[in-house]
Amino acid sequence: MTLYLEDLVAGQRFTSGAHEMTAEAIKTFARQFDPQPFHLDDVAAQDTFFHGLAASGWHTAAVTMRLLVESDMTLAGGVIGAGGELTWPRPTRPGDVLTLESLVLAVTASKSKPERGLVTVHSRTLNQKGEVVQDMTSRMLVWRKPLA
Amino acid sequence: MTLYLEDLVAGQRFTSGAHEMTAEAIKTFARQFDPQPFHLDDVAAQDTFFHGLAASGWHTAAVTMRLLVESDMTLAGGVIGAGGELTWPRPTRPGDVLTLESLVLAVTASKSKPERGLVTVHSRTLNQKGEVVQDMTSRMLVWRKPLA
Repeated sequence: MTLYLEDLVAGQRFTSGAHEMTAEAIKTFARQFDPQPFHLDDVAAQDTFFHGLAASGWHTAAVTMRLLVESDMTLAGGVIGAGGELTWPRPTRPGDVLTLESLVLAVTASKSKPERGLVTVHSRTLNQKGEVVQDMTSRMLVWRKPLA
Repeated sequence: MTLYLEDLVAGQRFTSGAHEMTAEAIKTFARQFDPQPFHLDDVAAQDTFFHGLAASGWHTAAVTMRLLVESDMTLAGGVIGAGGELTWPRPTRPGDVLTLESLVLAVTASKSKPERGLVTVHSRTLNQKGEVVQDMTSRMLVWRKPLA
């Protein structure tokens, strides 16, 4: 089902599939975007803040986007983020299996643009133990239903 | 020069090298992390909100991290983000050349952890026209100088 602004209400929840974070994917992402020892090398990572290999927070964020795009929050015209706030309460580790839980916090029609609105969504990315590895509140652009 | 908490002061500025966003890199990132028509396909992107191919905001964020890691803000122990707020005021397009400007907003010693503190940094990711494609305020963990 394709969702328009009119289909969304505060309190609505959406869920996603699962994504496993392999050590190889963690290192590949880090080589491209976040080349630091604790994301690249199992041994060197031991003597760092993370005490072992950990995914870049931006890798966790990117995988979260993938889970959102493939979730049951199937927005008309796609998922278009305007921005948000995020924290990483604990690292994502090799072998972690991530899932996403999203909760609609607010639905606001635009005053100036009659064809759209903004939805504020709280998304928690969880590992296989149910621990939060990313907590994000984001604003997404959502289209209104076209007039008949 | 390796920077500790004591080396950082509010008002300090850091700059980065440049990174070109190619159409191929935009599509490769999107296939992995944000598979939506406006990030994947030049033709399909025309009829969307973006009116042409645009990078995933998470791709811009990941490249920003790369620019930060390679910038002259060379933090002891690496760049360890605790979280932040970000917006994407305009899309990143194929051929855009991104650079990063960072400004230290606040430097705070930890009350409970004598060996570290938090630095709040405002980072603007600019395209080759000087337009802001990502605006982020982030909190980073920074180590104090070890006692002699």
